[in-house]
Amino acid sequence: MKKIAVFTSGGDAPGMNACVRAVVRTTLRHDHQAVGIRRGYQGMIEGDFWAMEAHSVSNIIQLGGTILRSARSQDFRTPEGRAKAYANLRANDIDGIVAIGGDGSFTGARIFMEEYPDIHMVGCPGTIDNDLYGTDYTIGYDTAINTAMNAIDNIKDTANAHDRLFFVEVMGRDAGFIAMNVGLATGAEAVLVPESKTDVNNLIDTLNSNYSNKKNSSIVVVAEGDESGGAFKLAEEVKKHCPYETKVTILGHLQRGGRPTCMDRVRSSRMGVAAVNALLEGKSGVMIGEINGEIVHTPFEQAIKYHNEINPMLLEMVDILS
Amino acid sequence: MKKIAVFTSGGDAPGMNACVRAVVRTTLRHDHQAVGIRRGYQGMIEGDFWAMEAHSVSNIIQLGGTILRSARSQDFRTPEGRAKAYANLRANDIDGIVAIGGDGSFTGARIFMEEYPDIHMVGCPGTIDNDLYGTDYTIGYDTAINTAMNAIDNIKDTANAHDRLFFVEVMGRDAGFIAMNVGLATGAEAVLVPESKTDVNNLIDTLNSNYSNKKNSSIVVVAEGDESGGAFKLAEEVKKHCPYETKVTILGHLQRGGRPTCMDRVRSSRMGVAAVNALLEGKSGVMIGEINGEIVHTPFEQAIKYHNEINPMLLEMVDILS
Amino acid sequence: MKKIAVFTSGGDAPGMNACVRAVVRTTLRHDHQAVGIRRGYQGMIEGDFWAMEAHSVSNIIQLGGTILRSARSQDFRTPEGRAKAYANLRANDIDGIVAIGGDGSFTGARIFMEEYPDIHMVGCPGTIDNDLYGTDYTIGYDTAINTAMNAIDNIKDTANAHDRLFFVEVMGRDAGFIAMNVGLATGAEAVLVPESKTDVNNLIDTLNSNYSNKKNSSIVVVAEGDESGGAFKLAEEVKKHCPYETKVTILGHLQRGGRPTCMDRVRSSRMGVAAVNALLEGKSGVMIGEINGEIVHTPFEQAIKYHNEINPMLLEMVDILS
Amino acid sequence: MKKIAVFTSGGDAPGMNACVRAVVRTTLRHDHQAVGIRRGYQGMIEGDFWAMEAHSVSNIIQLGGTILRSARSQDFRTPEGRAKAYANLRANDIDGIVAIGGDGSFTGARIFMEEYPDIHMVGCPGTIDNDLYGTDYTIGYDTAINTAMNAIDNIKDTANAHDRLFFVEVMGRDAGFIAMNVGLATGAEAVLVPESKTDVNNLIDTLNSNYSNKKNSSIVVVAEGDESGGAFKLAEEVKKHCPYETKVTILGHLQRGGRPTCMDRVRSSRMGVAAVNALLEGKSGVMIGEINGEIVHTPFEQAIKYHNEINPMLLEMVDILS
Repeated sequence: MKKIAVFTSGGDAPGMNACVRAVVRTTLRHDHQAVGIRRGYQGMIEGDFWAMEAHSVSNIIQLGGTILRSARSQDFRTPEGRAKAYANLRANDIDGIVAIGGDGSFTGARIFMEEYPDIHMVGCPGTIDNDLYGTDYTIGYDTAINTAMNAIDNIKDTANAHDRLFFVEVMGRDAGFIAMNVGLATGAEAVLVPESKTDVNNLIDTLNSNYSNKKNSSIVVVAEGDESGGAFKLAEEVKKHCPYETKVTILGHLQRGGRPTCMDRVRSSRMGVAAVNALLEGKSGVMIGEINGEIVHTPFEQAIKYHNEINPMLLEMVDILS
Repeated sequence: MKKIAVFTSGGDAPGMNACVRAVVRTTLRHDHQAVGIRRGYQGMIEGDFWAMEAHSVSNIIQLGGTILRSARSQDFRTPEGRAKAYANLRANDIDGIVAIGGDGSFTGARIFMEEYPDIHMVGCPGTIDNDLYGTDYTIGYDTAINTAMNAIDNIKDTANAHDRLFFVEVMGRDAGFIAMNVGLATGAEAVLVPESKTDVNNLIDTLNSNYSNKKNSSIVVVAEGDESGGAFKLAEEVKKHCPYETKVTILGHLQRGGRPTCMDRVRSSRMGVAAVNALLEGKSGVMIGEINGEIVHTPFEQAIKYHNEINPMLLEMVDILS
Repeated sequence: MKKIAVFTSGGDAPGMNACVRAVVRTTLRHDHQAVGIRRGYQGMIEGDFWAMEAHSVSNIIQLGGTILRSARSQDFRTPEGRAKAYANLRANDIDGIVAIGGDGSFTGARIFMEEYPDIHMVGCPGTIDNDLYGTDYTIGYDTAINTAMNAIDNIKDTANAHDRLFFVEVMGRDAGFIAMNVGLATGAEAVLVPESKTDVNNLIDTLNSNYSNKKNSSIVVVAEGDESGGAFKLAEEVKKHCPYETKVTILGHLQRGGRPTCMDRVRSSRMGVAAVNALLEGKSGVMIGEINGEIVHTPFEQAIKYHNEINPMLLEMVDILS
Repeated sequence: MKKIAVFTSGGDAPGMNACVRAVVRTTLRHDHQAVGIRRGYQGMIEGDFWAMEAHSVSNIIQLGGTILRSARSQDFRTPEGRAKAYANLRANDIDGIVAIGGDGSFTGARIFMEEYPDIHMVGCPGTIDNDLYGTDYTIGYDTAINTAMNAIDNIKDTANAHDRLFFVEVMGRDAGFIAMNVGLATGAEAVLVPESKTDVNNLIDTLNSNYSNKKNSSIVVVAEGDESGGAFKLAEEVKKHCPYETKVTILGHLQRGGRPTCMDRVRSSRMGVAAVNALLEGKSGVMIGEINGEIVHTPFEQAIKYHNEINPMLLEMVDILS
């Protein structure tokens, strides 16, 4: 192996920079060359390559976002696009790649590797949603739950001051991990996640019963992917049957950025080291994960196909503790 | 003077608790009794009074929201409501009140004092919007600009990673102080405030020129009260003429809560001390403010009627520095 | 079981309040009575009991420290003290106790339970040091590493600005978990932990070699329990052989407090629920832990006797990535 | 004027980067060239110059420290050193300089300007201590008080949990602004500043009286420059006469770094713009300050010679509110 390249793809996640840093420095430590590909698959097609040194990744471990940037690539969905990408990689003597991203990034990788099996690819799970099979935690997830929690802590100050009911929508199109953990951490009255069916009448009963018991304020946390249709729609429905003054907040993109937490920095670094090690051992087509504290390799197709499940004890806890 | 009461009214603001603490402890230090009125004017009507000791306000200086809570009171708009409030105050020997709130709270105070001039009232400017005349800074403003700035710092990580244009709406129905300072602090491309007319075509030209100059991401900060109609409407308009991928975030209520900054705690404390001192000196009908570092008394009618203006140098700076 | 009591003991840790809340609410949910014992074993001896309702633990999930306070108890080391404690518990019909604390708390519990086996005791691991066997994470650890990391991030700004070498001492008398994770997360040049012998000459060589390679600033993280004798002593030694301008910071007690992170709130809550469940199932003498995401019961004697080990991969990573 | 240079000198302060950014962009906006001098006067002597473009200062407004770095320069204290610096400036066609720093930096500037009056120099007050005459706030001060306050908030959690007395030493060699504001903001029992003589017996009486009144925990904030000799020495003295368990924390260098607050970013930017404007108007030998919200020019010799005084009302407030 002469050169190992690294790129970030899909939605940015805090810890991606820590992972890039680990990939670059581990590569250099093994006396290989490190190349950064800017803007994911699109940059691969356009040949947007960066010969990286140890100092190229100095002082980035604490930064949110990704210094390699990210982009959607329509071109990579075409055989012509992928052929161009392959030609660029060959021309640059790159035969190993670390892809930091989520579902979409690994789907792209699978197709590419079938066509060009001489390019070895290993993935690192970079997404705040924690929705990848093959790892207990994805890069950025721990930061995102703290960011969302801090925002809801703020909202609780106002909810308490004004006897209000707040519906707060957090990220999570397919997975309720953020909603569930943030809901528990902020003492939310209810948490609505895609993984379990919401009984709106039940929710209304709970809220009405709280109101009669002089519980003057409440937070309901809703995952954006919940089948109730999101916080606005749900609030409309509840408002009709509930005496509370209701408000809605969509946390939105502020959940994505920010300085990574300690766990995100350490895990991302560890996964970056492990990804290079996997390439050097001749592995390809696998995603690096951390399960029960150990590094695990999961084939891309499984990482994409299966899903982690929310611990049912957490669902019960919302009910017991609120 | 036998007893001094304190209440919070209108939207909650970080530092209100620090102000309440200062009112209570200063009152007790002068060997008077301190009374907390819960939920503003509504609590006054309902007689929701709390005899406060020094320890009642222990460990609250660092809390957002307000331990005295806040509420809108339709009843206080009626002569009957106000008569009831007066009766409660008299029955409890309260003849001095510190009202922590904004425009609405002081308007209520004015009407009440005309009817019942034997109740002395002094105000403290409690609102994150910084839109009260008679003070350089209102209670909660410094915290709110830091909270909004931190949220936009996060969004910038994503904007940079993905070459996107973000429209971020911050609080400020009548005043652009939050938008202006937050926009400058986050290096926003443009800041739209109610105080100055927005030329949307001009904005589109600037953004298009940035785009051609390879400036790949941008933040536009919009005050909710801007005459453009808010971030969503503006983004719709701009999108038609701009190549950027655009996103919208409404920061909403998370701007209101949170632990107060050092300046908010110190200023709120200072204003609380000054409010009690003013009552003890026989003052009534004035709002406490801090202008050029000095405590100033401004009659309620002026505090409500006039408005602070945004320093025009700040408007120019957005243009020079972005 | 009629009443379940809860107390906190030893050094305070963020998340203790979340755990107390969970114990109280789970107890009440099962229609038992909940009692808070203030100031740990000392309060047990003095009968400092608090009949707790659901609202007694409202709005505490986000607070650092412990509302039940903590204290050392010399009296509890004597048979007379423990007899008094037992008499108080009996007089109050308490037959189940949740003890939130560390080594010392569980040692006390073991002795007490041998003498008075009719009092059932279950422990929750409350210590920022993460040094208890039987759980992957202790209550407060995740918050502490983030607090220490943020402080060192700040120090790095100055180290970089001034070409300085900083020795930063973090908590951890017997365990290097905080030092190791914080060191990795801040890109420290070296991490010194009690679990591995420090070769000072080796460290000096590394730093000198960095200096020649124009690496102008460096952070060395030292666990307080490292056999090198702490940051001050180490800096004295290194300074003699190194051209860097060196500075020392002892982070100290600020690492202990602060608002708990999302993970600390969720884990502490989960452990509190599990502790009450264990008591209701007739368990006694065990510490609740979370291992590989599952709740585990470990006898007190094992939790005290054995120690978790630092993953050797982390030690290597410091060397590869710095 | 052909080129304007900018450097940072003395201790780093959050907001220096925002100021550098403003100097560079304002210079470029006026179609002049911008030059960064690395490591202050030492870099001037060594010719460590950097031709800066608009993008050189992209994404630095939110960073602590200084991208231009800082250094002490023994060489600049010699006529030979200054001659070399002058030669480098001339060789690079630099005739205007913005110096961001404190006392020492402006003293150097004065001497240099006497010898080489054709080099125009304007200063910006960059120091967290707020000890420069001619401005209400220095760059970095607002961030530093928030950083120190947050650290003490954490310590208070432990102080409350354990009935302890904490002595916390904050920065401020000659000025007590940090100590005073942080002490008020954290509800400290006492604040010891260089500006007023400490009566240790008085302090001991207060603490003993608190102890008898069941005030179980206390914070005493000490400025490092207080004539009592700092937190350790004071604690030794107090401990002899006080029943509290006492602890000492020296906050140290973590107070210097970190992301600047909104006010620090806005003020630093404003001062940077004003500094370039002053140079373009032909001004030299003055420090830019903000007094009562207005930009003010103060000759270096005054800025160094005089000192701002702490508002005596703040000293009283500690006593009333604690």
